[in-house]
Amino acid sequence: MRGAVLYGPRDVRFEERAAPTIIKPTDAVIRMSATCVCGSDLWPYRGISPIAGPTPMGHEYCGIVEEVGREVISIKPGQFVIGSFFASDNTCPHCHAGYQTSCQHKELVGGAQAPLLRVPLADGTLVATAVVPSDDLVPSLLALSDVMGTGWFAADAANVKPGAKVAVVGDGAVGLLGVLSAKLMGAGRIIAMSRHPSRQQLAREFGATDIVTGRGEEGVARIKELTDGVGADAVLECVGTQEAIVQAIRSTRPGGSIGYVGVPHGVELNGQEMFFAHVRLHGGPAPVRRYLPALVDMVLKGRMNPGKVFDLTLPLDQVAEGYRAMDERRAIKALLRP
Amino acid sequence: MRGAVLYGPRDVRFEERAAPTIIKPTDAVIRMSATCVCGSDLWPYRGISPIAGPTPMGHEYCGIVEEVGREVISIKPGQFVIGSFFASDNTCPHCHAGYQTSCQHKELVGGAQAPLLRVPLADGTLVATAVVPSDDLVPSLLALSDVMGTGWFAADAANVKPGAKVAVVGDGAVGLLGVLSAKLMGAGRIIAMSRHPSRQQLAREFGATDIVTGRGEEGVARIKELTDGVGADAVLECVGTQEAIVQAIRSTRPGGSIGYVGVPHGVELNGQEMFFAHVRLHGGPAPVRRYLPALVDMVLKGRMNPGKVFDLTLPLDQVAEGYRAMDERRAIKALLRP
Repeated sequence: MRGAVLYGPRDVRFEERAAPTIIKPTDAVIRMSATCVCGSDLWPYRGISPIAGPTPMGHEYCGIVEEVGREVISIKPGQFVIGSFFASDNTCPHCHAGYQTSCQHKELVGGAQAPLLRVPLADGTLVATAVVPSDDLVPSLLALSDVMGTGWFAADAANVKPGAKVAVVGDGAVGLLGVLSAKLMGAGRIIAMSRHPSRQQLAREFGATDIVTGRGEEGVARIKELTDGVGADAVLECVGTQEAIVQAIRSTRPGGSIGYVGVPHGVELNGQEMFFAHVRLHGGPAPVRRYLPALVDMVLKGRMNPGKVFDLTLPLDQVAEGYRAMDERRAIKALLRP
Repeated sequence: MRGAVLYGPRDVRFEERAAPTIIKPTDAVIRMSATCVCGSDLWPYRGISPIAGPTPMGHEYCGIVEEVGREVISIKPGQFVIGSFFASDNTCPHCHAGYQTSCQHKELVGGAQAPLLRVPLADGTLVATAVVPSDDLVPSLLALSDVMGTGWFAADAANVKPGAKVAVVGDGAVGLLGVLSAKLMGAGRIIAMSRHPSRQQLAREFGATDIVTGRGEEGVARIKELTDGVGADAVLECVGTQEAIVQAIRSTRPGGSIGYVGVPHGVELNGQEMFFAHVRLHGGPAPVRRYLPALVDMVLKGRMNPGKVFDLTLPLDQVAEGYRAMDERRAIKALLRP
């Protein structure tokens, strides 16, 4: 089969790779219905996160089970399944606590930008739908594999409650779906920070009530203004830079919460600033598996359409163009069809 | 009157100062029943936190109201009152949210190591008992002014729940009262980190089920061992150093919570370590005022005796010896009687 392999900065190739097979008896192999490019794929693509050598890319997936290992019980060939970027056994104490991305036996899923994918710990990782869904639902179901689950975790970690005043830092796919999550959780006011007209529009469609274009101290001042000088009850930090997290801390009211889901790059938090800010902080790699059953149900019932973040759809063999479009911010998120 | 004044490192003098008076119409002046030396007083005493000049010391107090300003409504002369180290109006949005130490009109209370003290914003700051309590209750009521309220906040911020496995970093008065707070909140297992036999004993008396003497990675390993490799559900960080907070982060299970109440000194949190640790972090200057009514009630009903942390009682004019004893760790906490 042919799949996406990153060779170095801005060098993604669609080339022949060995097709995945069952290696452990708890594995499954699935045939991709759709996959996509993640904002986090851009870190190595841009050369910011180093790679050890040619690296098969992609960790977002949904598709039809092709084959399962002999110890797999609940997942069966022919089922439509979705899973997270971290495989988890879903039985260890961390999984039971709802932190499957810290599973004691977690494994990264990689190489999803290809027609076939091996998923370890299939029973614990994959969630199957009752029937194979119609094709128009595939983008929204694919979004649950990472970005929507991550936006949902950001809102959950930030303790978004009905009526809450929420600010979202970051207008990438995760930030936009953080807006949608906050809306679905009943937030009263949702302030999206964005300078890009097309992203502002999608933020409004997802439920944003206000758009703030200012950054840094200017952005903080505007959020304070919009919250009667108090600060937001909940702030979703969906970027991962020092500027973004500091902005989040300063935008939150004392006793308010920050959910941070952007993988921190070079971030150092000043203890004393955090202390006197009186904020709550929670985040990390989103435990997508915890939320999958509920989110799948919401998509199947038409209660949300997170697939709207895919504003570019390409055949899988044009994966390199997907990276380019996202790198140049011509696209929010690129969906790839095998 | 005579009160404690810090002149420089290890130079506390008990000397003549002007007696406090009503300055603003919202002030009260109280006559001290007892006051004490705080662990945080040791930062300037040791020369670690600089002082601008001779500084009246002390911020923990309880006593009888002597006089009130003309706008004070609920607090009356003759009442026995307790208050926090931060005066607060108790009406602003931050106070309503329970974060009185971030009150929009907060003022530090200072100079409490003296027979008389001016307390700003008396109606919002002070909590009066129905009758003047018997003298044997004074140490426990005094403890509520800061250390017990701070230990309670640490446990609350760490989300201690019935049955929880709790670890407490720091065996000062706040850490020990964090143990007591966790016990009163129903924790199932309480691991106190301490190397000092007298403090270990008090920790056990307050409810600690296990004592860990190791520090750093050794301490972390022992906590992991005591929690079946999972980590603690809740960790109370009651020190404020880099070593203590890192130890707290590494001792907490994914999804677990850290309540941190030691004022951070030179603490920088690594964003990526925090992210992958999956912990919750909340802390800051304890909003003692929020907890005072409930804690006063518990003391008056004999449900707890936090005054046990005072293992040294001195007449106020020997305040310098109180500082020395705590600095040299001969005493956990020194109570001063005017």
